[in-house]
Amino acid sequence: MQIFLYSLRFACKLAASRFCHSHTLYDRKVVRECGANVRLYGDSNWGSKKQHRKVKLHFSLVMSDPKIEEALAPFRAKVKEQGDLVRQLKSDGAPELDVKKAVAELKSRKKLLEDKELSLIPDAANFDRSKMEDLLKRRFFLDQSFAIYGGITGQYDFGPMGCSLKANLLSAWRNFFVLEEQMLEVDCSILTPEPVLKASGHVDRFADLMVKDVKNGECFRLDHLIKAHLEKVAADKRTDETTRAECTDIIIKLDGMTKDNMAAIMSRFNMKSPISGNDLTEPIEFNLMFGTQIGPSGLTKGFLRPETAQGIFVNFKRLLEFNQGKLPFAAAQIGNAFRNEISPRSGLIRVREFTMAEIEHFCDPSNKKHQKFNSIRNTMLLLYSACNQMDGKGAEYMKIGDAVSAGLVANETLGYFMAKIQHFLLKVGIDPIKLRFRQHMSNEMAHYACDCWDAECLTSYGWIECVGCADRSAYDLTQHTKATGVKLAAEKKLAEPKVVDVTEAVPNKGVIGKVFKKEAKAVLDTLAVLDKTEIENLETQLIVNGEYNLSLPDGRSVKIAKDMIIIKRYQKTLHVEEITPSVIEPSFGIGRIMYAIFEHNFKMREGDEQRTYLSLPSVVAPLKCSVLPLSGNTEFIPFVKKLSQDLTRVDVSHKVDDSSGSIGRRYARTDEIAIPFGITIDFDTLKTPHSATLRERDSMGQVRISLNELPGVVRDLSYGKTTWAEVEIKYPKFEQQETARA
Amino acid sequence: MQIFLYSLRFACKLAASRFCHSHTLYDRKVVRECGANVRLYGDSNWGSKKQHRKVKLHFSLVMSDPKIEEALAPFRAKVKEQGDLVRQLKSDGAPELDVKKAVAELKSRKKLLEDKELSLIPDAANFDRSKMEDLLKRRFFLDQSFAIYGGITGQYDFGPMGCSLKANLLSAWRNFFVLEEQMLEVDCSILTPEPVLKASGHVDRFADLMVKDVKNGECFRLDHLIKAHLEKVAADKRTDETTRAECTDIIIKLDGMTKDNMAAIMSRFNMKSPISGNDLTEPIEFNLMFGTQIGPSGLTKGFLRPETAQGIFVNFKRLLEFNQGKLPFAAAQIGNAFRNEISPRSGLIRVREFTMAEIEHFCDPSNKKHQKFNSIRNTMLLLYSACNQMDGKGAEYMKIGDAVSAGLVANETLGYFMAKIQHFLLKVGIDPIKLRFRQHMSNEMAHYACDCWDAECLTSYGWIECVGCADRSAYDLTQHTKATGVKLAAEKKLAEPKVVDVTEAVPNKGVIGKVFKKEAKAVLDTLAVLDKTEIENLETQLIVNGEYNLSLPDGRSVKIAKDMIIIKRYQKTLHVEEITPSVIEPSFGIGRIMYAIFEHNFKMREGDEQRTYLSLPSVVAPLKCSVLPLSGNTEFIPFVKKLSQDLTRVDVSHKVDDSSGSIGRRYARTDEIAIPFGITIDFDTLKTPHSATLRERDSMGQVRISLNELPGVVRDLSYGKTTWAEVEIKYPKFEQQETARA
Repeated sequence: MQIFLYSLRFACKLAASRFCHSHTLYDRKVVRECGANVRLYGDSNWGSKKQHRKVKLHFSLVMSDPKIEEALAPFRAKVKEQGDLVRQLKSDGAPELDVKKAVAELKSRKKLLEDKELSLIPDAANFDRSKMEDLLKRRFFLDQSFAIYGGITGQYDFGPMGCSLKANLLSAWRNFFVLEEQMLEVDCSILTPEPVLKASGHVDRFADLMVKDVKNGECFRLDHLIKAHLEKVAADKRTDETTRAECTDIIIKLDGMTKDNMAAIMSRFNMKSPISGNDLTEPIEFNLMFGTQIGPSGLTKGFLRPETAQGIFVNFKRLLEFNQGKLPFAAAQIGNAFRNEISPRSGLIRVREFTMAEIEHFCDPSNKKHQKFNSIRNTMLLLYSACNQMDGKGAEYMKIGDAVSAGLVANETLGYFMAKIQHFLLKVGIDPIKLRFRQHMSNEMAHYACDCWDAECLTSYGWIECVGCADRSAYDLTQHTKATGVKLAAEKKLAEPKVVDVTEAVPNKGVIGKVFKKEAKAVLDTLAVLDKTEIENLETQLIVNGEYNLSLPDGRSVKIAKDMIIIKRYQKTLHVEEITPSVIEPSFGIGRIMYAIFEHNFKMREGDEQRTYLSLPSVVAPLKCSVLPLSGNTEFIPFVKKLSQDLTRVDVSHKVDDSSGSIGRRYARTDEIAIPFGITIDFDTLKTPHSATLRERDSMGQVRISLNELPGVVRDLSYGKTTWAEVEIKYPKFEQQETARA
Repeated sequence: MQIFLYSLRFACKLAASRFCHSHTLYDRKVVRECGANVRLYGDSNWGSKKQHRKVKLHFSLVMSDPKIEEALAPFRAKVKEQGDLVRQLKSDGAPELDVKKAVAELKSRKKLLEDKELSLIPDAANFDRSKMEDLLKRRFFLDQSFAIYGGITGQYDFGPMGCSLKANLLSAWRNFFVLEEQMLEVDCSILTPEPVLKASGHVDRFADLMVKDVKNGECFRLDHLIKAHLEKVAADKRTDETTRAECTDIIIKLDGMTKDNMAAIMSRFNMKSPISGNDLTEPIEFNLMFGTQIGPSGLTKGFLRPETAQGIFVNFKRLLEFNQGKLPFAAAQIGNAFRNEISPRSGLIRVREFTMAEIEHFCDPSNKKHQKFNSIRNTMLLLYSACNQMDGKGAEYMKIGDAVSAGLVANETLGYFMAKIQHFLLKVGIDPIKLRFRQHMSNEMAHYACDCWDAECLTSYGWIECVGCADRSAYDLTQHTKATGVKLAAEKKLAEPKVVDVTEAVPNKGVIGKVFKKEAKAVLDTLAVLDKTEIENLETQLIVNGEYNLSLPDGRSVKIAKDMIIIKRYQKTLHVEEITPSVIEPSFGIGRIMYAIFEHNFKMREGDEQRTYLSLPSVVAPLKCSVLPLSGNTEFIPFVKKLSQDLTRVDVSHKVDDSSGSIGRRYARTDEIAIPFGITIDFDTLKTPHSATLRERDSMGQVRISLNELPGVVRDLSYGKTTWAEVEIKYPKFEQQETARA
């Protein structure tokens, strides 16, 4: 999961963004496509008409409201000014430090623009996060882990409702991606030995800077600490103007700073622990992986995996074999990953233990077309390109087909997955007007990635990254090949056979075996993967020095003598070439998606703000149906029992609520746990033909259906085989006022 | 998961087994029930007729074959003799050490009997484990984790086939237990802070003894080391008879030995590292939990959970609330657990990282009846009671209703779950003749458990424990209450209101707040849970010493002064009483069940031993159907494509195999990955009405069905809505010889 790990953390070299070169091209196309905004939706590919209407509304409200645009104009201009400067510096080949400073300033201006945009969204003010969190806790969707022991920050337990939602979400994901796309799903180990994560770069670079209280050992994430300290200084009335400006300047530039920069600032402002006032240590690089020992000896160091992706990469060879050697194919994995955050916060958004669902699509690096691209070509996505971010423009709706043609999205496969990600997120309850795809700017992309788009959801924490979709190129497979000497590559048939000159170092196995004994295998494996240049170098060294230092994968080196090797040169006709596949990686943060689903579906009944509910789509709702006898009348009991059995038989999860309390009050309770359909057994049920009332949660509409038909109808509704609108047409309406207070 | 953790590890005090008291009673009933063995099956509750026949065959073959019984008789007699001695020693109140020695000898004799029994099973000799393991690896059901890095023992990755089997198994489990029984499923954290596992007993007692090579740090599990060493000594021709007898004696008694006993033996035989010959350390207690640090300070110690159960116990309060305060209810959890084995072996049977599915059924300790017990009362189980184990008898078939009535199985709830466990295991492919329930003998049961039965499956490793089913009493809830001061209890309505004398220590909150400041809450919480005796003791101390030392849950103690407390005495009418629920725990080891399923379903085609296949039931088979065009003829392509889409639409996972190779050869390939149904598109398919051949894996029978009907038929077959026998009656038979070599 490239995104969760590397963004903003692995500092990577700035390079001129190739997306901005294609800017003029794509911009022209966008303008031509758009004409009037409304035309965009003529052939759009959103799921339902309802969503379609909603998006149109959103578009006209937020994106085109002249008043809003007027308010945003100065912020946009400030971003554009700085974006132009960054581009200028890059094209002039300005010193790296100057570019970095300019980028930091650009980020800060982007942030101001985004905050302003968020403040202008009409319904944002109505959302009450504490009310939602109270509901989630009270109805045990989730709670802090080990709460009776005081709890642990950054860890959550899912109760029955949250657990069921999560299981349904994962099952929908598996159907949508693994089954429909015939992906190869794997289930790999969490405990990972050090060499694997050394090769992937995590051991060396997956770290945050922190400082410790020298007396009590309390830890602080360094960037958070500096920011808080300087904000306090700047807010102090006694601070002079120069210092205040300096503080603001540092806060803006903090993101791109080195360890030494930060250490200097700490000492310049004489920073102490904000809690105890004690001295602080020098900045320490704190690796975010949880370490442990595998086995009893204490010698095999291991980590809890920080992403599930590596499990797929190390199994590449077997997966390719399983796919009969053919590219492209995709592997997938659902599982837990761990990150030892220095100070986790923001609820489910930043946690220490989380579930991910990752896909690694392996393909020919010279052909990233996707055979099903046509099926999603017309899907409309809200794209927030790197260029628009630099120009202070907003995100823009665009067909994914056009975005790929224009070169804005790097290739068809990346585009295909972006469209599929959107389809999936809408299906499980993400609000389409609160979803956008933001392109990584060149400075925040991992150094090996060639394009990366995050699916971001708008929540009360701002836009949060829920799914990353990156082209990781051949980075990971290459790294693991280097580390193990095992070639992780595929064969590609050549259009024409090719005659090539081969230089080969043929080992004398007898001698090597005698000299190196146990290590002979490692030596032979290493010799087998030497490339032409290395072999020629070896040959020269053997002639000049009579020996050659061969580096083994584990870092040691051995001396190769003349009698161990014969260099052979000959010609060979090749019918296939060896390629290291590129990897396109969609990576889903399940907890974050769940959080966004909660926020996007937390509603209040009009005119009754105390009556809150969760409008989860039935595909993910924890329970599909409630069964409510009107009263404690014993005549209802056999009907309730029979209905419950019939619902179980057709796989409809449900809850019988035979507690006292009015029907309205009980409906309110089932609404809180997002049950989409409710059946009431009443006195009319006792008459033949036996029937009951079926109620839909969001509209509160009710119809009357015979008991024989009911289980089938509820199953079809629950699994999306029919819609409530269709049911309302087919069955007689049931009219009765529903009040929670009755 | 009581079973995987404690059996044979937590030594616990020997006590007279209460099951053996009821021995005569139940034995008499068994005899009466059995009459002729065959009668047992008259109204049995096995799944299918096929299973029924199989079990009958098994019974007559293994259990009643006079020749086999003759061979076993001397072994049975030896066990009985020793079992009687143990009973005698216990009833005489003999010294603990003597009892221990006698029990160790009993175990050894039981082992000899079991080995003999296993050697007499007719088909055991035909099974070739390496052949099966080769299949599992070759078709990527599973492989060692990080194989390209040399692998890590005790860790496995599941490839596409294994992963799908596992997902189907878990989904079947969730349907069978969570949905059908309306259990409350939770999903809790893996990283667990130390105090939680301190309270559960794992920090102090979840350990194995090991020794280390003093020079290179290599570790050995002590009991394994001693056994191997003494076996070598005993086998040496130069060893004299006395020493040989001593060795055999020690090996037998090893299981019950203390650390000091073992240390003495090590030095007596001057044991060195069997690998390097270096000296060894003294025995070290090695805790089997993986430790780590939560957060960056290094101060919060945590462990990877060794079982999922504790996550449920610490959430008991919220779960009870969710269930509106009512008992009984069951909570469930599926998830990973970890155990740092000293030297894992036996493939999937003993691993460091594994998936469990656990149920904690909370009920009134004075009423362990189960409301659905009648529905399973007649289920036949093969019960291997503690008494029979002591008497050298075999396991016996019995109705679970009778076993509970006779007191052999402790209560209805335990019995209900045992029956459900059997139903589940048979459904997912466990061979009924290789399944038994073995009761823990009193010396292997955890000290808090009051009855425990393991569902054991017969494999080439012998009988392995796959599911444990224990009555854990109130142990865990009590421990967490003690550790946190949070009362984990339920309220039970009294039949009659009760007037009681209350002694209460009413705190003076003002004073306590002033004196203890931050700690006041802990002090008040602790005072609130003092029982009557403790309050009276406090009162006395205050009078005598003017102060009282109150121990807080974290181990510290504070001084309570006179002015902090008023002791009140009054009468109160109680309508409810507070009870700490008992817990019945069925605990499933998913990896072990998978392994047993593999072994029980690994088959060879008659007359062709090279042609192996896996006869997995379709409910768990990784893919349900294959689609095979007869040849590369392009006319077949649109039919294959359409069929694949139609199968996806009805949720049938499938694999299109359009590679070259005869149909027979391709069927053989799909048989290996356990695909139960295969469709062949041939030249007749091109004619109208379009039809294709449907083939069933186990019988290799084939029928001809129209393409319109096919997807529905395959779906119904896959999800058990129809049987192959029914399909064969309804559709015309297709006759064609199938050979893999064609």
